[in-house]
Amino acid sequence: MSYLLQVDFPMDGPFGDEMAQAFEELANSITEENGFIWKIWTENEDAKEAGGIYLFETKETAQKYLEMHTKRLAGFGITNVNAKIFSINSKLTEITKGPLK
Amino acid sequence: MSYLLQVDFPMDGPFGDEMAQAFEELANSITEENGFIWKIWTENEDAKEAGGIYLFETKETAQKYLEMHTKRLAGFGITNVNAKIFSINSKLTEITKGPLK
Repeated sequence: MSYLLQVDFPMDGPFGDEMAQAFEELANSITEENGFIWKIWTENEDAKEAGGIYLFETKETAQKYLEMHTKRLAGFGITNVNAKIFSINSKLTEITKGPLK
Repeated sequence: MSYLLQVDFPMDGPFGDEMAQAFEELANSITEENGFIWKIWTENEDAKEAGGIYLFETKETAQKYLEMHTKRLAGFGITNVNAKIFSINSKLTEITKGPLK
């Protein structure tokens, strides 16, 4: 059963194409993380916020990733991180076509 | 370009199969909403929280849904709702296999 990790934080930028260039290498490395299934990269230039929605294979791999990622964000000067790990209601998610693979 | 709506709130239950039964009809109706692409139903019985991650076709349809959904949640007695609408960095999301359809 997969777990969802929801992360967001204040960020001054870069956003958009500049963000994509800055984090391309990081994005590739994330795909190699233990238990990783997918990540959607979120951003809001007006609100100066960014984050990610991740799917992991287990609660433990989501927790370990979050621990590592929180330290990495702190290294970028980002410390005000909102993060929550949820289990998924798969019956309701199937009805609403949520992608769990 | 699709937009992501991230919603979570404190909830006493029901969770799991009971939640699925209680909200099956609602889940079916959500798939008919304007601009709706998919929803993952999130829950955390230990933390007594629940929510959803949604993908919408436009920012406007995400905003309209959130407005309606916030009122609906208030009708269930849920008023302490955290909600954020984000655009998506599609280049980075493609690298990390994020599902945008």
